[in-house]
Amino acid sequence: MSQNSGYLALSVDSLGARLSNIEAITRRIGADPAAWTIKEVGDGNLNLVFVVESRHGTVIVKQALPYVRLVGDSWPLPLSRAFYEHEALTRQNQRDPGSVPQIYYFDRDQALIVMEYLQPHTILREKFIRGEKVVGLAATMGRYSARTAFRGSELSMKSSDKKADVAIFAGNVEVPAITEALIFTDPYFDAEMNHHTAGLDPVVDKLRSNVELKRRVQSMLMRFASNTETLLHGDLHSGSIMSTDRESRMIDPEFAQYGPMGFDIGMLTANYLMAYFSQPGHRQAKELEPYQDWILSVIVETFDAFTTEFEQLWKTERTGMLYPACLFEDQGHSSEPACKAVLADIWHDALRFCGIEMHRRVLSLAHNADFERIEDTAVRAQLEARNLMMGAELILQSGRIADTAALIALARKYDKETIL
Amino acid sequence: MSQNSGYLALSVDSLGARLSNIEAITRRIGADPAAWTIKEVGDGNLNLVFVVESRHGTVIVKQALPYVRLVGDSWPLPLSRAFYEHEALTRQNQRDPGSVPQIYYFDRDQALIVMEYLQPHTILREKFIRGEKVVGLAATMGRYSARTAFRGSELSMKSSDKKADVAIFAGNVEVPAITEALIFTDPYFDAEMNHHTAGLDPVVDKLRSNVELKRRVQSMLMRFASNTETLLHGDLHSGSIMSTDRESRMIDPEFAQYGPMGFDIGMLTANYLMAYFSQPGHRQAKELEPYQDWILSVIVETFDAFTTEFEQLWKTERTGMLYPACLFEDQGHSSEPACKAVLADIWHDALRFCGIEMHRRVLSLAHNADFERIEDTAVRAQLEARNLMMGAELILQSGRIADTAALIALARKYDKETIL
Repeated sequence: MSQNSGYLALSVDSLGARLSNIEAITRRIGADPAAWTIKEVGDGNLNLVFVVESRHGTVIVKQALPYVRLVGDSWPLPLSRAFYEHEALTRQNQRDPGSVPQIYYFDRDQALIVMEYLQPHTILREKFIRGEKVVGLAATMGRYSARTAFRGSELSMKSSDKKADVAIFAGNVEVPAITEALIFTDPYFDAEMNHHTAGLDPVVDKLRSNVELKRRVQSMLMRFASNTETLLHGDLHSGSIMSTDRESRMIDPEFAQYGPMGFDIGMLTANYLMAYFSQPGHRQAKELEPYQDWILSVIVETFDAFTTEFEQLWKTERTGMLYPACLFEDQGHSSEPACKAVLADIWHDALRFCGIEMHRRVLSLAHNADFERIEDTAVRAQLEARNLMMGAELILQSGRIADTAALIALARKYDKETIL
Repeated sequence: MSQNSGYLALSVDSLGARLSNIEAITRRIGADPAAWTIKEVGDGNLNLVFVVESRHGTVIVKQALPYVRLVGDSWPLPLSRAFYEHEALTRQNQRDPGSVPQIYYFDRDQALIVMEYLQPHTILREKFIRGEKVVGLAATMGRYSARTAFRGSELSMKSSDKKADVAIFAGNVEVPAITEALIFTDPYFDAEMNHHTAGLDPVVDKLRSNVELKRRVQSMLMRFASNTETLLHGDLHSGSIMSTDRESRMIDPEFAQYGPMGFDIGMLTANYLMAYFSQPGHRQAKELEPYQDWILSVIVETFDAFTTEFEQLWKTERTGMLYPACLFEDQGHSSEPACKAVLADIWHDALRFCGIEMHRRVLSLAHNADFERIEDTAVRAQLEARNLMMGAELILQSGRIADTAALIALARKYDKETIL
């Protein structure tokens, strides 16, 4: 991918001059950059993000940096990730219209995407920390996960189109490699960039000495890296979702790759569960229980919405080569059991990916604010320990967790445990 | 892929004039095409194959046709398959040196590969039909399958190299699409090009009305089409193996694609089993039993050799990102159980792919000579019925077949059954 075509990182000072000739931008915020207010707001780990505002409107300008922002230029990362992000956003918008910000402009050489400013949206993770509810969150997320999973797979797509797309995304090597290392491997040994809360050592030792656990995690890494069932978002945590009190949109799919259909919803579930386990660090008993109950209801309803939508698409859009009607309906045989079996595989994959994501956010490089904002490290460690132990159970016992009721019961059990 | 660059199919008459300027050829058989003897010997389903001989030596000239030879130009097939075959042969020779014919010359535009003439090799399937043994067959096949599976995966390869290779082979769409249709789907409905032996209808009806069987086959199709564990041969039947009485080589990998590690050895096992079940149609009782015993011993020993080689590579060449030493050996933990678990997954995949291959060779378009040469269709149907029913059991009960002893016992049981 081209990384040598005059790429220059934007700054608050240079942005106006550099972007004021682009019609897709000036149409929305006017052509006089002197009248623009420009703020750099990138709080993520990888990129520059600017909010560019005028009296006519506001746009988001996102630009990739040639390294990992969280770590610095000692960790180079190719600009081509902006290309993959743009490709992924385009497909996501086709598969679940309106689920992602509208794209106004893309410059591959400058690794630059100009897109819709979502307002009054905030990062879902912040809402969880503040104890705010989002109406319709579960329905939106379940539907989005089902639509992108199904419509990006050979249940729906022509095989030749899907294989051509696999070839495109096979070029996104370095960014998925971050997932491979930080999520699946680093948590389970003393990797250089790891850190964890003081006091957690006994639990960490327990996980790292569990050979069967590590074996299962590696088998899921093999599955993640060697499976092209569908095009994943690849990083669907609560920091990649922006919500108002009644609408949610997905952002930041630069980790997009082909992978197993259970990955996105599994990672999402982990982030719901981490919001759940961290709540005692954020609010008092009176508000705590109802809000935790709400998070658990979101988990149940997300999977319900996923299942409902997936079954609907199975009935109405099964146009790919997999499970064709000629083998089922055309012979007078229902394909419903086949659909249920595919959903069961997704469920068990999701549980295992969920457990792994719960581990890495506490043990590896990129922690999450749900736990990190808890200043009392003794409290934080206790809550993280619950989260780690439940993660291990999901990885080791996914086959015994039949449904969301069992998952929720498990979360409630760990939420009451004193582990440290 | 270029298909418009002056491609012209070779003929016995034109070959001499067209290839007599190519040094890689003339070095071996001389520069005077008038002194060449040229025979077209292609008995496969797809390509032209010429044996070109002189007093200096002999070479094989293989050229792809722009359609499926077995069917004719009503079924177009891209010339690019010669490119994929060449790419695959190169990798196979790196991963298991000497396992494939030596390549002398490749012309991508002419879809032409000039390669070593294997002599006195004959197609392994012929040897099975004639009742000839091949010393070392199991060791060669087990080692080849293990080396290509392991060394083509992220157990061994750098992920960036493997992903780049996945992108290359994702372009091989039309040829794997034949596998997807003919192997996984057509056998289970009344597809246009299907045919089967008179008398088999009751068994065929039984298979096609088994919804759970069809569901499982489709789940294996999903696994075949959405899995990139390693670079497969993709068509490793006994017609893709050439043997003397003590040496065996692999040919014809134009179906090469990334796929699950159990696919090649599963397809191979099916072809061993079809040789086994068809034997009563080819020889009398006295010779029958010892030869059938030999085939079963080849199955056992092929898996033994596969396992031994795979475990050895696991110990000595595990340089990829999967199951890294930092999680196991470096922490004082054996990774042997992890290796056993990977092998168990390969085994169960192999059994299911095996059962599916046993079905398609009797029900779909491309039958095999093992059964087809049996002229008495009543005898043939009986033997094919055993083969079909065992195939179904492999697909439905793979989880209960623990090892090669159980597999062999099953084969012996079906070999005695009267199904029709």
